[in-house]
Amino acid sequence: MDKTFDALLARMHELRDLGGVIGLASWDRETYLPTRAHEARSHQLSTLHGIQHERLVDPRLGELLAWASDAPRLTPDQRAMARVLTQERDRAVKLPRTLVKALAEAQSQGLQAWREAREERRFARFQHALSRLLALRREQADAYGHGGERYDALLDEYEPGMRVARLGPVLASLRDTLIRLVGALQAAPRQVPELFQGRRFDTEAQWRVSLRMLGDMGFELDSGRQDKSIHPFSSGLHPTDVRLTTDLDEHSLEGLFSTLHEGGHGLYEQGFQPAHHRTPLANAPSMGLHESQSRLWENLVGRGRPFWTHYFPLLRDAFSEGLTGVALDGFLAAINRVTPSFIRTAADEVTYNLHIVLRYELELLLIRDELPLDELPAAWNERMRRFLGITPPDDLQGVLQDIHWAWGEFGYFPTYALGNLYSASIYAAARRALPGLEEGIARGELRPLRDWLRDHVHAEGYRLPAEELVREVTGQGLTDVDFLAYLQSKFGALYGVTL
Amino acid sequence: MDKTFDALLARMHELRDLGGVIGLASWDRETYLPTRAHEARSHQLSTLHGIQHERLVDPRLGELLAWASDAPRLTPDQRAMARVLTQERDRAVKLPRTLVKALAEAQSQGLQAWREAREERRFARFQHALSRLLALRREQADAYGHGGERYDALLDEYEPGMRVARLGPVLASLRDTLIRLVGALQAAPRQVPELFQGRRFDTEAQWRVSLRMLGDMGFELDSGRQDKSIHPFSSGLHPTDVRLTTDLDEHSLEGLFSTLHEGGHGLYEQGFQPAHHRTPLANAPSMGLHESQSRLWENLVGRGRPFWTHYFPLLRDAFSEGLTGVALDGFLAAINRVTPSFIRTAADEVTYNLHIVLRYELELLLIRDELPLDELPAAWNERMRRFLGITPPDDLQGVLQDIHWAWGEFGYFPTYALGNLYSASIYAAARRALPGLEEGIARGELRPLRDWLRDHVHAEGYRLPAEELVREVTGQGLTDVDFLAYLQSKFGALYGVTL
Repeated sequence: MDKTFDALLARMHELRDLGGVIGLASWDRETYLPTRAHEARSHQLSTLHGIQHERLVDPRLGELLAWASDAPRLTPDQRAMARVLTQERDRAVKLPRTLVKALAEAQSQGLQAWREAREERRFARFQHALSRLLALRREQADAYGHGGERYDALLDEYEPGMRVARLGPVLASLRDTLIRLVGALQAAPRQVPELFQGRRFDTEAQWRVSLRMLGDMGFELDSGRQDKSIHPFSSGLHPTDVRLTTDLDEHSLEGLFSTLHEGGHGLYEQGFQPAHHRTPLANAPSMGLHESQSRLWENLVGRGRPFWTHYFPLLRDAFSEGLTGVALDGFLAAINRVTPSFIRTAADEVTYNLHIVLRYELELLLIRDELPLDELPAAWNERMRRFLGITPPDDLQGVLQDIHWAWGEFGYFPTYALGNLYSASIYAAARRALPGLEEGIARGELRPLRDWLRDHVHAEGYRLPAEELVREVTGQGLTDVDFLAYLQSKFGALYGVTL
Repeated sequence: MDKTFDALLARMHELRDLGGVIGLASWDRETYLPTRAHEARSHQLSTLHGIQHERLVDPRLGELLAWASDAPRLTPDQRAMARVLTQERDRAVKLPRTLVKALAEAQSQGLQAWREAREERRFARFQHALSRLLALRREQADAYGHGGERYDALLDEYEPGMRVARLGPVLASLRDTLIRLVGALQAAPRQVPELFQGRRFDTEAQWRVSLRMLGDMGFELDSGRQDKSIHPFSSGLHPTDVRLTTDLDEHSLEGLFSTLHEGGHGLYEQGFQPAHHRTPLANAPSMGLHESQSRLWENLVGRGRPFWTHYFPLLRDAFSEGLTGVALDGFLAAINRVTPSFIRTAADEVTYNLHIVLRYELELLLIRDELPLDELPAAWNERMRRFLGITPPDDLQGVLQDIHWAWGEFGYFPTYALGNLYSASIYAAARRALPGLEEGIARGELRPLRDWLRDHVHAEGYRLPAEELVREVTGQGLTDVDFLAYLQSKFGALYGVTL
């Protein structure tokens, strides 16, 4: 039996190694690839994906996994490894080759049409390609199988185990409370002025500060690195090789928050236990849980008073000119300013999830085929008015702003909201478990938090589905209670209102 | 028939894509890999090599190649593609798995023993591991097959088509003339003083100069890049993605010559014609011919008066302090100073090939099993005395200096000498074909040479074996005549003697 599991393990190793190499080739494409090499890199990545797919659907792997599903003497971890890989393999097996090919073509056409539509600032230009993508995604959902709700099958790729029936009510409750909070904050007598306009922050100094923060967080720079790319991202090639990127802009300090965000993802990837390396357990159980770790460091920690009590003096040293006349209180207010705005990626902590709920509601309607596509921009704008009280001046600042749908990605957006909700619940649990946590943070001691997260979240890997793991860590599953309590306390104090 | 060739071509593409990705993972290991990720990277590379080998020996590929070997309507290029891949596949098929595994283990043990022997400065510590490597390489030669000379089978991996019967006499003639030249130069009344000791050359400025030279040579920086690594190397992931590395030392300008060297390799890789991309024809036909391009730029061009007529003023600007009191003539003499020395990699153009012949003679004896291993250090030292008139003070500066044998590489060293010989013949042909070539170089015009090399050497790819291609380009095959004429003319003038 050991020998059979060894054969299965060897295939797991091979698949993870291929995944790591795909990660490397993708990271390199965004960082160091010569400009004329993009076509060659596409070919290389396509070849690697092809081999990975072929290995995954190999019937012999299916036999080994079938054996593992009722082999009596496996350890719990071995069982979990086999279970996770079985899920992944089942999805790959169920997807017909013709559909995979049609999707790849539709994605490419979708991107092209979306770019043209953006240039013309006109959704109609994108409508036909989007219609094709939606049809194929519905087909994909049917191929995977579902209990009547196609969206569940798509969501399951990013957030395994999550269902519309569970997610919908939580997001609806969150939406209603957030609309109320945004209104209350806008009506508050105390308002927060914009602070950063016209200031300049040397990008070399930002780079040094960002590396200092990563090191302080416990991101291990001998098992990872930070580079520059146009869009920041993180990529775990292996727990000893975790690559973050950042994009620094001399007119803004947002790059520092981006580093904290990617650093949070990076800590997750570095925190898988050695026994799980090169196996399917060295994975977060969901995108939402992964996002919880980036948002925890970016927002719960990184936009909080304890953190800046320690770092603001360092920041003043690094940007003495850029921060002229700015004190800690003003800085904290400015980095937490709440303003309804059109663009999701620039949204503050309070309004952000309304952008997500908007997309979730629309893509659920689209996948259900309950919203005619030519009504999509109007449906978008109507929700923007209802949720945030503003109307996009054009589709570029409305329905065309995100690349996700252009790429045919439906079911991904909710994971951003799940990340925010989970981040607050997990941070609340950390505060309960670690008395004096925030006093320590105010002294620059970030390691106790990292260590606690590593022990309770990261090292678990993919043993449990996301919500079960969250329940083990926090005592409860998905809820908006912790997140809303956090917003009410923090923004109530900042704006001088009771929320 | 077209469809069958398309199937073959798809497999060629896949193999080249895998090769490119292996190149990327290897390049990254030497440049940006986090220090703790080496074990993970070894696994990834081993997985990729395993898949590459599996694809290569796949019986279906064998069938396609067999079909191509007598398909009537293939183009000459299609035929050549199939021939090159057949050679590569035959070697892979002939190598038993057990031997591959034994070699990998022996290489690992060889490296380890060699490192320990270097620490103890004692060859005996390495002897046992070397003996094992030699035995396995003999076994490998027998597996490949040969006509009685095992060394031929090993040489063939690096220099396809070259044989001991052809190479031996040329190297023997070269050796005898070089011994005479070295003696004459040492006895010359005019001697060249060392110039660089104690000087300092800012590495940032060296970096800028090296990039400038690469650009001037016509190395396309939108299809390649230069980075830093401990040992300089070049790697062609694809003709649009050619990566060079350099190691700059503030106490030396050798890094600039290293850039010219790697740049020469890089031009070769960028010069394959688009119709050959992702096929076996986008390859140099031999390591020796590849080396001819690096040596041509490093030495024939890069240590010549025309080149420095243009670049020395730029160098003076970049290193005004480091080059205080140095004029063009003194600089040219210093970068061409001839001194018998122990270490091959630091050798000048005249003595360098004697280091190579020494290794060639010894490894031929070793593979033939005609030299007892415990006599190897003495045989090395005896040749050092006979060729260069000096005796290594210990094995570290003698038989233990190169990593090649520690890695079980036998048959590779001669390609360095072949590179030098071919470089002189090809450069002589270029001068004949391009009147005013060196006057142009003296004005900084390097592109005509690159374009000529691209048209006549690089773009040919692997259509012909190396020596046949050289014959087409220069009118003759392997010879030491051009190389010796070059040395005699250049060093005779420098040292004021008739050679």
